[in-house]
Amino acid sequence: MKKIPVIMDVDTGIDDAVALILAMSSPQIDLKGVTVVAGNQILEKTLYNTLSVVDYFGSGNIPVAKGASKPLVRDLYFDAATHGESGLGTAQLPPPQIKPHHLDAVDFIRETLENSQEKITLVPVGPLTNIALLLMCYPHVKDKIDKIVMMGGGAFEGNMNAVCEFNLFVDPEAAQVVFDSGVEIVMCGLDITMKSYTTMEDILRIKATGTAAGEFCAEAFGVYYDRYVNNSRLPGCAVHDAVAVTYLLHPEWITSKRANVKVDIEGTETLGQTVCDFRENRIKALDNATVCLDIDREKFIDLLVNACKSCK
Amino acid sequence: MKKIPVIMDVDTGIDDAVALILAMSSPQIDLKGVTVVAGNQILEKTLYNTLSVVDYFGSGNIPVAKGASKPLVRDLYFDAATHGESGLGTAQLPPPQIKPHHLDAVDFIRETLENSQEKITLVPVGPLTNIALLLMCYPHVKDKIDKIVMMGGGAFEGNMNAVCEFNLFVDPEAAQVVFDSGVEIVMCGLDITMKSYTTMEDILRIKATGTAAGEFCAEAFGVYYDRYVNNSRLPGCAVHDAVAVTYLLHPEWITSKRANVKVDIEGTETLGQTVCDFRENRIKALDNATVCLDIDREKFIDLLVNACKSCK
Amino acid sequence: MKKIPVIMDVDTGIDDAVALILAMSSPQIDLKGVTVVAGNQILEKTLYNTLSVVDYFGSGNIPVAKGASKPLVRDLYFDAATHGESGLGTAQLPPPQIKPHHLDAVDFIRETLENSQEKITLVPVGPLTNIALLLMCYPHVKDKIDKIVMMGGGAFEGNMNAVCEFNLFVDPEAAQVVFDSGVEIVMCGLDITMKSYTTMEDILRIKATGTAAGEFCAEAFGVYYDRYVNNSRLPGCAVHDAVAVTYLLHPEWITSKRANVKVDIEGTETLGQTVCDFRENRIKALDNATVCLDIDREKFIDLLVNACKSCK
Amino acid sequence: MKKIPVIMDVDTGIDDAVALILAMSSPQIDLKGVTVVAGNQILEKTLYNTLSVVDYFGSGNIPVAKGASKPLVRDLYFDAATHGESGLGTAQLPPPQIKPHHLDAVDFIRETLENSQEKITLVPVGPLTNIALLLMCYPHVKDKIDKIVMMGGGAFEGNMNAVCEFNLFVDPEAAQVVFDSGVEIVMCGLDITMKSYTTMEDILRIKATGTAAGEFCAEAFGVYYDRYVNNSRLPGCAVHDAVAVTYLLHPEWITSKRANVKVDIEGTETLGQTVCDFRENRIKALDNATVCLDIDREKFIDLLVNACKSCK
Repeated sequence: MKKIPVIMDVDTGIDDAVALILAMSSPQIDLKGVTVVAGNQILEKTLYNTLSVVDYFGSGNIPVAKGASKPLVRDLYFDAATHGESGLGTAQLPPPQIKPHHLDAVDFIRETLENSQEKITLVPVGPLTNIALLLMCYPHVKDKIDKIVMMGGGAFEGNMNAVCEFNLFVDPEAAQVVFDSGVEIVMCGLDITMKSYTTMEDILRIKATGTAAGEFCAEAFGVYYDRYVNNSRLPGCAVHDAVAVTYLLHPEWITSKRANVKVDIEGTETLGQTVCDFRENRIKALDNATVCLDIDREKFIDLLVNACKSCK
Repeated sequence: MKKIPVIMDVDTGIDDAVALILAMSSPQIDLKGVTVVAGNQILEKTLYNTLSVVDYFGSGNIPVAKGASKPLVRDLYFDAATHGESGLGTAQLPPPQIKPHHLDAVDFIRETLENSQEKITLVPVGPLTNIALLLMCYPHVKDKIDKIVMMGGGAFEGNMNAVCEFNLFVDPEAAQVVFDSGVEIVMCGLDITMKSYTTMEDILRIKATGTAAGEFCAEAFGVYYDRYVNNSRLPGCAVHDAVAVTYLLHPEWITSKRANVKVDIEGTETLGQTVCDFRENRIKALDNATVCLDIDREKFIDLLVNACKSCK
Repeated sequence: MKKIPVIMDVDTGIDDAVALILAMSSPQIDLKGVTVVAGNQILEKTLYNTLSVVDYFGSGNIPVAKGASKPLVRDLYFDAATHGESGLGTAQLPPPQIKPHHLDAVDFIRETLENSQEKITLVPVGPLTNIALLLMCYPHVKDKIDKIVMMGGGAFEGNMNAVCEFNLFVDPEAAQVVFDSGVEIVMCGLDITMKSYTTMEDILRIKATGTAAGEFCAEAFGVYYDRYVNNSRLPGCAVHDAVAVTYLLHPEWITSKRANVKVDIEGTETLGQTVCDFRENRIKALDNATVCLDIDREKFIDLLVNACKSCK
Repeated sequence: MKKIPVIMDVDTGIDDAVALILAMSSPQIDLKGVTVVAGNQILEKTLYNTLSVVDYFGSGNIPVAKGASKPLVRDLYFDAATHGESGLGTAQLPPPQIKPHHLDAVDFIRETLENSQEKITLVPVGPLTNIALLLMCYPHVKDKIDKIVMMGGGAFEGNMNAVCEFNLFVDPEAAQVVFDSGVEIVMCGLDITMKSYTTMEDILRIKATGTAAGEFCAEAFGVYYDRYVNNSRLPGCAVHDAVAVTYLLHPEWITSKRANVKVDIEGTETLGQTVCDFRENRIKALDNATVCLDIDREKFIDLLVNACKSCK
């Protein structure tokens, strides 16, 4: 079986950790490296968490490269209330034994793309700062990007305000650069990720795997779960970032629509909105994205449980 | 039966004409007057059309007052492609025998509200220019407005671009004034009005009433119907403005949600969007609108057919 | 001598009071009425102050009409720090014996214009809310307006931020409506009004007139003077609003340039800026304003002193 | 004499060529390299022109590195009308024998800064795209930048519209990044550069030097001179970019003021304006720029003439 070559870009984060475990445990994915950005927490913490998760649950030598400590033009807004002071809730891992790659994120991705024979899929699940910098500085590497499968945005939902999702809120200008770049995008936004939740029952299944990964995920979900159940209409907590990895493995579980997506960066009420044009009479040649809208949640949960079972 | 006192504000327009016929033929509605604004066509034509429709299909003396010839701050954008050169497609009526009221729209509404013992419902179905001017100039009349049941906007749909409806596109600043005014709003936007369409079969039923109103409506729908069927996914043409009148008569046919609605007037991609916040964790005390989302279409069509039957 | 027919629009305010005294004491000005807007203080206070000043220092029956209590779309921002709690610093006048006109500001101006044989000059020296409402509601009265000689804005200076003056800051949307209206404008902005200051020596001359007006002005200048001397590079306090009246009487004392002026209402850094295009290669047919830039300050002060001397 | 270590960033361009000749002929400047951006013409042409000028008039091995072919987020707007199809008016040089550096602009500047013992001054005279990318991707190099002496913007003048200069117009977002970066800026905007013009008499002096540089500059000024004299109030053509180099050599000839400068990127009327806050009561700790306002033009012209005389 041909593996899918992937670079992930993360701001680890509880659901980023789950997404990494899912990717690292999958025999279908060839994880070329992981780059790190500030978002759910400050860069120092998201880098530390990424190194810990990759070191503890990954096999082989997966490079981890340090990226942007702040959005392109705005100050960093991060979310300690959701992800906790460490960024991983109450879960704990041993201090990482691995070090960040000597190249920083933008240069690591560039070099990996330039040296690759085949096209690589980028999977950013945090603010799009690193990816935007890459595309602005080194537009020639677009030819080596198969597509960008990202977590962020939403066609019909927001969480920071009525129409804006967290990753877009943190760095809307970066998102605009990515969506306007000409690179094909798969957008796993709140429309699908809010349907990709784990109930308490699911969390207990994950814990019951008895593996280190299962224990870690179940523990990490604790406070995060409470917050979702109290603040939204959901019967569980959304595992946003894992949806992007799931798209790589099982696009057939996911319902989506083609659209022309633009990012608003000026509106007082609409800053960071991913404006999705699905109209029948739109100019379809301008479509730049596949917007994911629904998922077979049962299969998604089974996938997470199995990932925890099989994880190193 | 207590009648509902109503002032309509129209930019007649094919669907405005149908909305007027529906209102004037209903024994439940006490139509205190009709004010006119530029929108579907230039003011000269929307005024002429309104006078014609009110003169021909109305009973008694319904005042018609002339309002704004252009949006608050923008130049007028009108839509001859949809409503035809006259604004009523290929339908024709005798020249109106009635004259515009001696007061202009803003003063007519103000005086009517000031002199009324009871609260009056405003039903604007065009750009909100007249209503915004009223609320800005004479904020004290807010106490006499029961609510504003308006056609325009959309929570999840646009027609001028991905997220903006025609009436909001023409005068977004006016819409912002109205939505921020503190007056209770019922928004009949594209979410519901695109579900309120007439198929060819429905149009034939309307024609088969054999009344002048039925003949007129069926003729007016002609080109308008073709345009919808060719440019959208609908199996018929949306009778947008009649939905606002239907809400007055049969709110029980309509599904809606409370929301906090703001109008974006700055975003490059989102100008004129009615940004609807439905989130569970929003501050519900700030809700300013009931957003209509669905309708029992069969009953809506029956209502239109019966209105044509019973119309003078 | 032919008198100049004038309607003033004020948010009284220390310098508004001086402007009113200057206008009411001039035999060249036929003051048809005074309309009031919120700005330097809330409407209740600016109305009270205007009634007091007109009652105490005016002769004959000058109508005073109450206008808008808040800007078109924004909340009111007022400036108690500069004009004091009452709006007139520490100066005091007897309670006014006159009442507001039965028409409100917009209707008063409209009726006065409609009933006038000759064109009238509007002299707004506060936020442009009333004037914008007039022009939006009743565009036909433009033909009766000779020009608008206004205090506000600035080509090269701001006081609320680097580029925005107070009146524009309070209601930028209203200013945009006025500047885009097609009515000829004379803009007395900070460029000229910051050169129209009274030193302590000047204030003592005003006081030494020994008239009620002189005493009142000198007292009103007290705290206002201190604030200017402490917060700006000026050796005195700017008597902004009196400059607009001076333009009516002695345009020959004033240096100005023709320009095309637009108001920015979107920029984060430039909200309310009067963007003045003076370029040689601009399209001069679009010029909508005479931008005043400098004044013969000595003559201006003499004029104020004489106004206080001759005032009733 | 200690030389000033400098990296120039150019979009060559007639006045860029003069600026390069001025820098390369000066014994006070240690030109570490030249990076190229799109602006006056497309990148292919600005790179070719830069290589030609550096090859023909430079001594030693001055690296020339290729940078961004388009602004951060907008499409490229360039100005063939001013600089001609080639970008150098009617002047011609032999094809360059030197090749672009193997690193691109951002990496070249980064590496040069990282490897330098002393701080280096950046002198960008085109759109700020390359510099913004550098500062966003590699913020750690800010410590190695002495200051940024740039041509662009204007406190009181615009040339693309009333308030916006060409380089800011082309890439306003990049300018915002640079001005918000925390690096000290010297802004040589239109305020000073429109006073730094060459009359026909000056051009004849330059030609009369008889050197290749003098001939080249005089020829390049031809059409450019006509355009200025016809389209502006100037008695000559502005040599914008050479002013930034002059600031390095003779700051004592230049009048300037400290200011807090922000770039507007949202206003309809003010896009790309460098909003300069000079107010006495501003927070001076936020000052980020020295804004140049006037120059001793005679000395500036003498400097240009002497540069042409002494140029290789």
